[in-house]
Amino acid sequence: MTDDAVQGIDPRTGRPSGEPIPFTARDELDAIAASAAAAFEAWSATPAVGRAAALDLIADRLDEGADKLVEIADAETGLGAVRLTGEVTRTSNQLRLFGEVLRDGGYVEAIVSPAKASATPPRPDVRRMLVPRGPVAVFSASNFPFAFSVAGGDTASALAAGCPVVVKAHEGHPATSAAVAAVVAAALREAGAPEGTFGIVYGPPAGGPLVQHPAISAVGFTGSPRGGRALFDLAVARPDPIPFYGELGSLNPVVVLPDAAERDAERIASGYAGSLTMGTGQFCTKPGLLFVPDATAFLDRIAEAIAATPGGPMLTARMRDAYADDSAWQGLPVLAEGGASDDAFGARPQVRLVELSGFAADLDALTEERFGPAGLVVRYRSVDELLRVLGHLPGSLTGSVHATDLDAAATARVAAVLRRKAGRLIMNGWPTGVAVCWAMHHGGAWPATTDARHTSVGATSIGRWLVPVAYQDWADELLPPELQRANPLGIPRRTER
Amino acid sequence: MTDDAVQGIDPRTGRPSGEPIPFTARDELDAIAASAAAAFEAWSATPAVGRAAALDLIADRLDEGADKLVEIADAETGLGAVRLTGEVTRTSNQLRLFGEVLRDGGYVEAIVSPAKASATPPRPDVRRMLVPRGPVAVFSASNFPFAFSVAGGDTASALAAGCPVVVKAHEGHPATSAAVAAVVAAALREAGAPEGTFGIVYGPPAGGPLVQHPAISAVGFTGSPRGGRALFDLAVARPDPIPFYGELGSLNPVVVLPDAAERDAERIASGYAGSLTMGTGQFCTKPGLLFVPDATAFLDRIAEAIAATPGGPMLTARMRDAYADDSAWQGLPVLAEGGASDDAFGARPQVRLVELSGFAADLDALTEERFGPAGLVVRYRSVDELLRVLGHLPGSLTGSVHATDLDAAATARVAAVLRRKAGRLIMNGWPTGVAVCWAMHHGGAWPATTDARHTSVGATSIGRWLVPVAYQDWADELLPPELQRANPLGIPRRTER
Repeated sequence: MTDDAVQGIDPRTGRPSGEPIPFTARDELDAIAASAAAAFEAWSATPAVGRAAALDLIADRLDEGADKLVEIADAETGLGAVRLTGEVTRTSNQLRLFGEVLRDGGYVEAIVSPAKASATPPRPDVRRMLVPRGPVAVFSASNFPFAFSVAGGDTASALAAGCPVVVKAHEGHPATSAAVAAVVAAALREAGAPEGTFGIVYGPPAGGPLVQHPAISAVGFTGSPRGGRALFDLAVARPDPIPFYGELGSLNPVVVLPDAAERDAERIASGYAGSLTMGTGQFCTKPGLLFVPDATAFLDRIAEAIAATPGGPMLTARMRDAYADDSAWQGLPVLAEGGASDDAFGARPQVRLVELSGFAADLDALTEERFGPAGLVVRYRSVDELLRVLGHLPGSLTGSVHATDLDAAATARVAAVLRRKAGRLIMNGWPTGVAVCWAMHHGGAWPATTDARHTSVGATSIGRWLVPVAYQDWADELLPPELQRANPLGIPRRTER
Repeated sequence: MTDDAVQGIDPRTGRPSGEPIPFTARDELDAIAASAAAAFEAWSATPAVGRAAALDLIADRLDEGADKLVEIADAETGLGAVRLTGEVTRTSNQLRLFGEVLRDGGYVEAIVSPAKASATPPRPDVRRMLVPRGPVAVFSASNFPFAFSVAGGDTASALAAGCPVVVKAHEGHPATSAAVAAVVAAALREAGAPEGTFGIVYGPPAGGPLVQHPAISAVGFTGSPRGGRALFDLAVARPDPIPFYGELGSLNPVVVLPDAAERDAERIASGYAGSLTMGTGQFCTKPGLLFVPDATAFLDRIAEAIAATPGGPMLTARMRDAYADDSAWQGLPVLAEGGASDDAFGARPQVRLVELSGFAADLDALTEERFGPAGLVVRYRSVDELLRVLGHLPGSLTGSVHATDLDAAATARVAAVLRRKAGRLIMNGWPTGVAVCWAMHHGGAWPATTDARHTSVGATSIGRWLVPVAYQDWADELLPPELQRANPLGIPRRTER
């Protein structure tokens, strides 16, 4: 990146990849936001099935262009063709999931309270549903160049909701962003969406003005606690504050209970090493904290599994430099290291060991998220002692427990504490690999998300871009079809007696 | 109010009513908040039917004590026994509504995505529901001493959700607040709720510390834009920002379309006068802006109806003084005035007339909410011209249209604009008198509410105090009953195929 352009870099070689893309100037940004505002009326009025068809078309066009997109992304991110090909599929499937959500119609949460003259006071006819909020800004993440980027979950759910989208591209993969943006824009045009339904801006200077732009009605963000907090502060300082749905950082504590450590050591050790180092540890769901009982044989299995993991490239030089700075963990013994990496931005897996008492004594420093394949193993002596410390952890996206039947009582107690911290509780599994499904929740207490109510994955993530409206004694033929007496779309509705 | 105590004042006489109540000291506030935090585990773990029974008991005890409560409230608010008796009933019915919501169980929004080995990648079993967020702070409103105060909708919905509540009493009715708090606390004790499930603090200095207290996880507020913005800013400036659900101010525009003005003049004029001056104009849903076509006979009906309305007391001297300051409307002709008032804090209804062009030219000043029985009638020449101006209004809780069949085309266009501003659209009715029902939405764009997604009235208002959690591959017997395979509570759930 220069002072006025974004330049992709190959993490394997450290050399430029693709052409530089100029920063979006302020007047261009204003024009893009104005175009999104102008598109809102028509896009939000497009019937749900029409928006579903447009999402399906974007999905098809991404799949058709996958080979070329993967090639561009691999050169900018070093994530490898296998992972990136799977991620394009995940991305197109996300778009199709929201097509299903739209055709189902339950997402408008329609409630009908028919008039009731016998009530005191007499009740009017009231019909409520969710409607699109307005144009949305989406800040791409670095670590999923497809699934949490230009055409990722935030964009898919916002377009599904009926909201035009302005994406702020991530500096880590500008060429990929531009290529995906071209696919999205072309598919939307082909589907008949109004001009301005989708736009994209480049360069760090665009972030603040986008969040504070009067045309923008909500923000989706995936990134660092520091950057997210700065943009959050701008969003809530507006004359008309807007919601800022940020996913900022997560430690994803994993608790191994005593009987599981004894009986399931191999499975847990290999699962941990895989989850910790997958994608060079650059997942928001990386298991950053592993709480283990005092069992030497179990620790040996962990060390062996980590030692067998390979190193790999980080996404950017800045991330590699941040990873290399292990000052917060200085003085803690290294339990195991994985293989070295020949890549320009290479990182080597490393796990350190700390006693629970030492962890608790230095909680603030040791609960700073470290992006990359580094993990902290925390050894506890008793579950009671463990529960007290878990209660002081910052919020996370996930909390996991490894347990056998004999651990059931402790599992319940651990879950009661983790439930206040984390939006997803996993039993005998690992947090990486977030299933895109109706019941998924990808959120948690601050700083996992800026508001624990909101998810950035799964069917319910569409709710971020919708607001309710109630129609009182409204003429049936002037109601949206979702609320008309005959329910012509046949959507799920609640009706009060 | 003195420097260290809250003193109720009779608005009819201007003299003290009841004993002064000392401001809550900071260490008392800390103890109350800590007690709420300690109560959270047990109250949130109380089964939904148990919480429903507790809410029903509070409702019964309020009804039983209604005569005495109304007497205390009338002496502090001057709202009259008829209105206040009705308001106690509304308040107890709100509590019972949330009992129904809890027994129904749909409020947890349970979604089940069963494991699917055939999916790529294989899908784990994921089960999502909403769970209580944590202790909640509730800031009482002045204008509904029962229904939006100590035992009002925010408290009822938060207790229903499983969240302990700390109320900040309004300075306008301290004795009523104390009396209701005693009823609530006693009923909760009788129902077996843990100590600390409900607390109350007094005095303006308690507000900021309550919003920033680490034990508090969300805030409900009904009050002025200025006070609400100040507390909102504190809530979002916390190290861990929390949601601030504020209802701040609303103009509630009403559009009278040409054919309705011609054919329905009497009905509209009398309805307007009643809605504008009800409760001495101290409703958040007061129709502050009436847009009328250029029709002299219709304006005459409006003037006659207003002239027939009585004056009455405002709630506090400060509100009376604010009402008396009509500088923002200086120079606009008075269309009609109602009767004078003999009360110490008396206010006289007044309606002024302004042309649409003049209104648009001075929009900022003329869209400041004026609490009390004052209304602005805005005369438009064409619907096109009207639509352009409506698009620049600030957010409101409601938007209303008076229309006949002949006005249908214009109705649709007006509704499309108002829908972006207001959370409830009313046809041929008036915004005052908010029905407490499942489909009600009481919210709107800023400044009507701090986030247009949230309602402070109706069944869905419980959602403010809940956050989702997803259980992945969790042992069935360790799941909350709402998510167990057998669905033992028989609640409504969505199941993905």
